[in-house]
Amino acid sequence: MTVQEIKGKKLVKGIAPNVEPEALLNDKRKVFLFGSPSYTNIGDQAIAYAEEKFIKNHFPYYEYIEIMDYATDEGIELVKEIIREDDIVCFTGGGNLGNLYLDIEEDRRKVFSAFKDYKSISLPQSVYFEDTEEGQKEKKKTQDAYHQNTNLTIAARETQTLDVVKETFNSNVIFTPDMVLSLDIVPRELERDGVLFILRADKEKVTDEDFISQMKQWAEKTTYTERTDTVLDTVDTIDYADREKHFMEMLDRIGSSKLVITDRLHAMIFSIITKTPCLVFGNSYGKAKHSYRDWLESLNFIEYTDKNDVEELERMIDRLLQAEPNDVDLSKDFQPLIDFFAS
Amino acid sequence: MTVQEIKGKKLVKGIAPNVEPEALLNDKRKVFLFGSPSYTNIGDQAIAYAEEKFIKNHFPYYEYIEIMDYATDEGIELVKEIIREDDIVCFTGGGNLGNLYLDIEEDRRKVFSAFKDYKSISLPQSVYFEDTEEGQKEKKKTQDAYHQNTNLTIAARETQTLDVVKETFNSNVIFTPDMVLSLDIVPRELERDGVLFILRADKEKVTDEDFISQMKQWAEKTTYTERTDTVLDTVDTIDYADREKHFMEMLDRIGSSKLVITDRLHAMIFSIITKTPCLVFGNSYGKAKHSYRDWLESLNFIEYTDKNDVEELERMIDRLLQAEPNDVDLSKDFQPLIDFFAS
Repeated sequence: MTVQEIKGKKLVKGIAPNVEPEALLNDKRKVFLFGSPSYTNIGDQAIAYAEEKFIKNHFPYYEYIEIMDYATDEGIELVKEIIREDDIVCFTGGGNLGNLYLDIEEDRRKVFSAFKDYKSISLPQSVYFEDTEEGQKEKKKTQDAYHQNTNLTIAARETQTLDVVKETFNSNVIFTPDMVLSLDIVPRELERDGVLFILRADKEKVTDEDFISQMKQWAEKTTYTERTDTVLDTVDTIDYADREKHFMEMLDRIGSSKLVITDRLHAMIFSIITKTPCLVFGNSYGKAKHSYRDWLESLNFIEYTDKNDVEELERMIDRLLQAEPNDVDLSKDFQPLIDFFAS
Repeated sequence: MTVQEIKGKKLVKGIAPNVEPEALLNDKRKVFLFGSPSYTNIGDQAIAYAEEKFIKNHFPYYEYIEIMDYATDEGIELVKEIIREDDIVCFTGGGNLGNLYLDIEEDRRKVFSAFKDYKSISLPQSVYFEDTEEGQKEKKKTQDAYHQNTNLTIAARETQTLDVVKETFNSNVIFTPDMVLSLDIVPRELERDGVLFILRADKEKVTDEDFISQMKQWAEKTTYTERTDTVLDTVDTIDYADREKHFMEMLDRIGSSKLVITDRLHAMIFSIITKTPCLVFGNSYGKAKHSYRDWLESLNFIEYTDKNDVEELERMIDRLLQAEPNDVDLSKDFQPLIDFFAS
């Protein structure tokens, strides 16, 4: 295949938005990232952002090529024509391996079975199949697809997922934090004000609305509050070129708050990056809870809780607000991922 | 000024090769890097590469804009028209602050005096003015230029330079390692063979050629040897777009050797990155020696020496070859530079 052929018909929008077409045919070892998110969940956008930084910082001699989620089918066809023996196929990380987000899960099955003879990895994920007939049926489909690929590694981002992966799949498994925790962004100094509630409006939501109202009323006694989500409703899609901008805007929004109250894993992680005190509640299957317990419990300005006694939470929040934010260094915990890409 | 005006006449080659013209006028805080090297010293190219990574990893919300060395005058004129109160002016790091490389020193004087009212920094450097009439005359010129700028910080990359800077300038001074040591590149696994001599052919050279011949003869008893330099003579210039390629090629050359013998600071640093045993000799004013002593002495596969007894060096090399290469974590030592850019 020539660059002219690629430019002529194969390179539909969404394939390789991060490189020049020539990069698809150079001599470098390729790392293909499938499932690059175009949807407006800034958590998943930040994961893709961190994945790119991770590869480019540690392996600048590789060619890193993204395929956006909406171009998965065309991307598979093109990559099949250009992939070489040594190349690596990745599917982006997140909290969507399972039966809750079937459009993404179906893409992941397609990618891992299409490239069954190539070194492949599901980047750090939370895995959750519901214990229902539907959930178990989808689990079987996922097993059938992934098990075609004997070169597959699955990275689990909490011990809970690690256990599920070991039970469910024959694949290699590695254990690392969420990719966004590999970033090394210095928090911007911003004026802080108000309490920001960042709350799910999706099928993973379990936080009770009455309880949220009580918390808001309590907060409004001393400051103003706002409510938002890490899933934007101001844009329909976010393409590669706009990813950093939206991620930075979300960091600024969180970093200009005095306190974040959330049931979103990435609102917690963005609070860590911006040194913003943060109280975290759970989702339907504990992904924020387990990331907190596994990696982040030593942070004095972040607290996970399952309690919903407002008075007790007030005391908890007072402690968070008074803490001089500390650090946790997780860089060594990404070593299994470095070893994976190095070999 | 509009983007059309910038594109029309102001944007000569070498100004902002790393961004789209629109970036010059956006709302972000700007970091301007002057002196970005077009010459073929891969040490200085690697420094510029590391400076870009450093800013982009830690401060992705800034706009980082390079001005190549050959466009310094036009770059100063353009930046004067677009710079805002809060922006930061940098001159690239290296081992050229002093009277040995006057073309670069003259550019640095111009930049710091042109932007005397702006937060400015000379990125990590070795400083050396010869103790001659010429050297002292140039030192005076440099003092006069830098002292116009009361917002100037000078980063010293060894204690020796730290002392010189404190004696010579009224400016703020910070102490950090060479920028290339801030990179986090995973060494590529390459077949290793031969001994690579990487030796200066410039005015800083002090290693005796007879002694080099003895070392080569000794090495050739058991393997083949090659001689090169980290200054390329295969190309005339290296522009921004080709920087990474040449840097990676040099890393591969060093990483495919069994042993490096050098009097170049960056041949030592590239050996550290690629885990290649390395014996290091001095230059005219000790920049490799002092970087080694200040930051790198704990590395078991790197040794600095001023000795030239071949038998003793053989024993030293045997030790280096047998060591299981260890690590040194200097990430905390860049904190003063992070604090500079954050404020």
